[in-house]
Amino acid sequence: MASSNAIVPGTTPDAPAPSSVTQINKTVHPFSRAQLEGLMTKRFFYTQAFEIYGGVSGLYDYGPTGAALQANIISAWRQHFILEEEMLELETTIMTLSDVLKTSGHVDKFADWMCKDTKTGEIFRADHLVEGVLEARLQGDEKARKAEQTNAQQAQEVPVEGGDAKDDKKSKKKKIKSTAKKLDDETKAEYESTLAQIDNYGGPELGELIRKYGIRAPESDNEVSEPVEFNLMFDTQIGPTGQIKGYLRPETAQGHFVNFGRLLEFNNGKVPFASAHVGKSFRNEISPRAGLLRVREFIMAEVEHYVDPLEKDHDRFQEVADLKLSFLPKGTQQAGKSDISVQTIGEAVKSKMVDNETLGYFLGRIHLFLVKIGIDPKRLRFRQHMGNEMAHYASDCWDAEIHTSYGWIECVGCADRSAYDLTVHSKKTKRDLVVQKPLKEPKVYDKLVPFIDRKKLGPHFKKDARFVDEAIAQLDQAGLEKLLVSLRNGEADVGGYKLTSDLVKVELKTIRENVREFTPNVIEPSFGIGRIFYSLLEHSFWSRAEDQERAVLSLPALVAPYKTSVIPISSNEKLAPLVKQISRQLRAKGIASRVDDSSASIGRRYARNDELGTPFACTLDFASLSKGTMTLRERDSTTQRIGQIEEVIDVIKALCEGSITWEGACQRLPAYSGEQELD
Amino acid sequence: MASSNAIVPGTTPDAPAPSSVTQINKTVHPFSRAQLEGLMTKRFFYTQAFEIYGGVSGLYDYGPTGAALQANIISAWRQHFILEEEMLELETTIMTLSDVLKTSGHVDKFADWMCKDTKTGEIFRADHLVEGVLEARLQGDEKARKAEQTNAQQAQEVPVEGGDAKDDKKSKKKKIKSTAKKLDDETKAEYESTLAQIDNYGGPELGELIRKYGIRAPESDNEVSEPVEFNLMFDTQIGPTGQIKGYLRPETAQGHFVNFGRLLEFNNGKVPFASAHVGKSFRNEISPRAGLLRVREFIMAEVEHYVDPLEKDHDRFQEVADLKLSFLPKGTQQAGKSDISVQTIGEAVKSKMVDNETLGYFLGRIHLFLVKIGIDPKRLRFRQHMGNEMAHYASDCWDAEIHTSYGWIECVGCADRSAYDLTVHSKKTKRDLVVQKPLKEPKVYDKLVPFIDRKKLGPHFKKDARFVDEAIAQLDQAGLEKLLVSLRNGEADVGGYKLTSDLVKVELKTIRENVREFTPNVIEPSFGIGRIFYSLLEHSFWSRAEDQERAVLSLPALVAPYKTSVIPISSNEKLAPLVKQISRQLRAKGIASRVDDSSASIGRRYARNDELGTPFACTLDFASLSKGTMTLRERDSTTQRIGQIEEVIDVIKALCEGSITWEGACQRLPAYSGEQELD
Repeated sequence: MASSNAIVPGTTPDAPAPSSVTQINKTVHPFSRAQLEGLMTKRFFYTQAFEIYGGVSGLYDYGPTGAALQANIISAWRQHFILEEEMLELETTIMTLSDVLKTSGHVDKFADWMCKDTKTGEIFRADHLVEGVLEARLQGDEKARKAEQTNAQQAQEVPVEGGDAKDDKKSKKKKIKSTAKKLDDETKAEYESTLAQIDNYGGPELGELIRKYGIRAPESDNEVSEPVEFNLMFDTQIGPTGQIKGYLRPETAQGHFVNFGRLLEFNNGKVPFASAHVGKSFRNEISPRAGLLRVREFIMAEVEHYVDPLEKDHDRFQEVADLKLSFLPKGTQQAGKSDISVQTIGEAVKSKMVDNETLGYFLGRIHLFLVKIGIDPKRLRFRQHMGNEMAHYASDCWDAEIHTSYGWIECVGCADRSAYDLTVHSKKTKRDLVVQKPLKEPKVYDKLVPFIDRKKLGPHFKKDARFVDEAIAQLDQAGLEKLLVSLRNGEADVGGYKLTSDLVKVELKTIRENVREFTPNVIEPSFGIGRIFYSLLEHSFWSRAEDQERAVLSLPALVAPYKTSVIPISSNEKLAPLVKQISRQLRAKGIASRVDDSSASIGRRYARNDELGTPFACTLDFASLSKGTMTLRERDSTTQRIGQIEEVIDVIKALCEGSITWEGACQRLPAYSGEQELD
Repeated sequence: MASSNAIVPGTTPDAPAPSSVTQINKTVHPFSRAQLEGLMTKRFFYTQAFEIYGGVSGLYDYGPTGAALQANIISAWRQHFILEEEMLELETTIMTLSDVLKTSGHVDKFADWMCKDTKTGEIFRADHLVEGVLEARLQGDEKARKAEQTNAQQAQEVPVEGGDAKDDKKSKKKKIKSTAKKLDDETKAEYESTLAQIDNYGGPELGELIRKYGIRAPESDNEVSEPVEFNLMFDTQIGPTGQIKGYLRPETAQGHFVNFGRLLEFNNGKVPFASAHVGKSFRNEISPRAGLLRVREFIMAEVEHYVDPLEKDHDRFQEVADLKLSFLPKGTQQAGKSDISVQTIGEAVKSKMVDNETLGYFLGRIHLFLVKIGIDPKRLRFRQHMGNEMAHYASDCWDAEIHTSYGWIECVGCADRSAYDLTVHSKKTKRDLVVQKPLKEPKVYDKLVPFIDRKKLGPHFKKDARFVDEAIAQLDQAGLEKLLVSLRNGEADVGGYKLTSDLVKVELKTIRENVREFTPNVIEPSFGIGRIFYSLLEHSFWSRAEDQERAVLSLPALVAPYKTSVIPISSNEKLAPLVKQISRQLRAKGIASRVDDSSASIGRRYARNDELGTPFACTLDFASLSKGTMTLRERDSTTQRIGQIEEVIDVIKALCEGSITWEGACQRLPAYSGEQELD
């Protein structure tokens, strides 16, 4: 049962072993998603919300271990992005005025297409339905062809696993059973081509595909309705009158943009700078599955980096220029391929595959962050969005995708939102959301300027005067020149109004501009913390070679919920005060620890330690009382060292801070040669 | 203008000066709320959300300074509560299944009473309306009496300020203008008595008061409708079908309770233990005013501490027993008084004024936390809820109230929720939410037990058999005894069914119980972070004696957004690399700093530093380049010291960690005798 879900092998043998000098083969047992999920519940990393009420799909609660792991990921993120780059952190409201999201385009465009089983009323996401059915047919075709070749009797009904899905969307749909049935070659090619472009289709196209391919509801085999749009925002009423409509924000970004004026002022009017916000966002998914990967409530960590559109270079670009990343550019995908191009960020920016230094800089920083917290760099790639796939506000977008048993999952988006949002908000609210930049040399030029004698214009045109004024204001240089000539000749016509030179004059003026005014462009790295959290768990999970049931989470100390266990070798009361004292000492040094003084055997307690992802364990025995010593065990290698209690605590602190490796720890602490009962 | 809002003086002169040895009189200028609010906007601590769209009342965004201050308060809270007491932290969903809140009582009872202006439709919170009108009449009466006494012509319309309001509710209502008009002594006394009990009235009583006192809408003078209930939860639909109703949680508590089973298991089945959660909650306030004190979206930090109802003592109680708190018990209030009783927590628990040690322990820990982050202990009291005031789930409740210019504000609630929540969820979901505790000595007793012969009962009663079974199961010992006697006599009647001894027997059995099973009681300290945040700002705010415009926020280093400014004395380019280097050094030591290299004078930059609440400032001049020195300025006293750059940074670190005071810093660094231009 457990291994039947195995799709993708665990971390490869040559992946770095974060806190161990011993090379451990972590792939002896194939990855089992069921086993990981079992562990998550057993050790209360997370669970479905309102479980005792039957649960609600797409909503999850994090227990003590999961909450700590998530908090540590966020803390590492703050350190890596906000503190390192002195970003301006915000804390804005989740409840969002509908006008704001109307302006940003979310009220009209933030939707998925859904269709209904016309008889049972079951609801499907239209793209997932088309994908699922076509993939099942292709799978059936494959089976039929195999059966044909081998003349074997394999044409039975077999469920189709998500398998090597191209991206996360592919594997989120409900699994559809396939039946062996051969397709003609032309149909097969057509299905494949359709699937390669599925992210590019809107509702009407999906409706056409449903009709063309006779797609029906998978279980009931009933007809499905035409796709209709379903807005993914949760809506509610603010206040008791029902007149103020609100939405739960679908991203934190708009909270940054509406505060842009104050942020710019706080930054003394200068760009570039970035705002950052870690907080919850909400999407009312049509039919969420796939655990933490598609949820209705999630923590995002978003950076909005404001730049001069003419200066998208970055002064720290050199720090990442030589970093090699795995790229999957849009050209490759549009040609129906998925070949990865490994190159340095410097090369990618130079060739313009990645548009500019700032975008390239953030791709590099994203990569460094993900690897730092424990994501396997071999299962990390940067995929560029194709044209129609892009969000309505983006001019370019690269996703950091992480490979999991669900396929490649979009975990971080890095979009160039251009000046879209600031422009629309500025237009709607009539507030200037612009930067004024002093010009090195003032710009001096001549310009025709109209001068209206309003004292005469008013009485002359009466209530029309306003329109005349506007008509003149709208004239460009050519129009003003024409007006000048006409006035010289006696009378001019502007928008149907007759003008003479006593009412308006046109003169050539020398203009001197000292500042350039522009709407900044926004580069947005946007992190889905829950998806990163889940991917990290898959990448960290493996089983001991000797026993598949003995699972280990190889979380780096940086993010592990507890850094060390404190384990008294027996429940003898004499050890209890020492256990308390060591807990206190660890706490004073800022090292999160967990005492395991249960009556379980020492081996079972180490196994529990490994399941919690705790990198180290301090074990106390009677020598701790008589000689003041304590042993230190490293999770991945299970090797043990011994030292004076104070020294061991100092070593743990150094290990957690990353100032020494386990190899360094072994130099400071001698090997422990004592014998311990391990189960 | 600024001083017209002055109601309460700032911190008293003998309040401790957190980081200064110089005794500074911070109360030369009366507190001005307008000046504080101006500073909050100018330095972007917070602002109304969607300001450029006209804003929405009750929703606020925090800028870089406010977000950092809030994050530091939360971080101190985590340290003080979660880490210190090894609580189990949770991260649960905001979106809550309606069934859960139906069970908890929130769907039916979490409401305020509102009434409508019958012509304009304006909406009022009923209790605020009654309070506001009666207070205005009393104010008018006072004016009239004064005028009578002095024969002066003061009977003009003057706005009434919130004044010395008893609690926060009093001052949240819309301010109503009062007109001098004398009341007879009886009416005056009646109004006063009504106001003293206002928190005790429900909707029908408020309706009666409105009719009795002829209360009308203050501005329009129209009639108002009967009070109707308005549920304070935001509601929405989960998923596209509209069949799953959800609410935004009004507290985090229910997220703890529905996970109680898993939490207990994680804690190896033992109590006491606590879960904790910091997160957003939502209340759709009818008409929020008073800035951050009554908002629709806010961060709560809640602890649910689970205890054996028979053992509410606390093993760390002695740590707080001698701490003196200011108590306002319910008896005093019900007698219409507000005299504070200052006594130790030990005394309060001994006299049963505070019910038990666990409750007392948390009151002490709450006090210590608030004082640690900078709340003036002289403006902090603990008020007990009166009977009708208590939330539907609480059996006792003490609020930590902080005094501000709005009066006494409830900032922390500390409720004994008894077994209410766990019991109702258990009953609804049919899941055991109980603790099993081994008995020291097994309990042995005899008991009558019925034995039903179901093989005969079924055929005998057919479809009624189920009801017979239930009727027997519901019999208590007396009922069973009666059944036993009747059966011996031949035939018995249970619920109208005739029974004989071939169908059912009753026997005396010896029962041996090894465990006691109980539903734990819950003690809940619940913190409104935004209210604490605002109160702290009021307590920290003062102006320099020499110039009221020069405002200072005396935030303790523990929570200050930035710990130190870095100020180059001039914009000379030679200083720039050193500024960068020092920023980097500070960052490496975990000290949040902010460079101010603007072209403003040094005095203006120090003033800005003071407004940001930054406790220290490092100033770099050319001696920094030639001799490697830097000066260190303390915010409150404005005194300056000098030292080698490394040494100054070490001193700042020690000051921030609280391991030395400014006095200690002065011992390590000599006084700075240089002259600086201060404006």
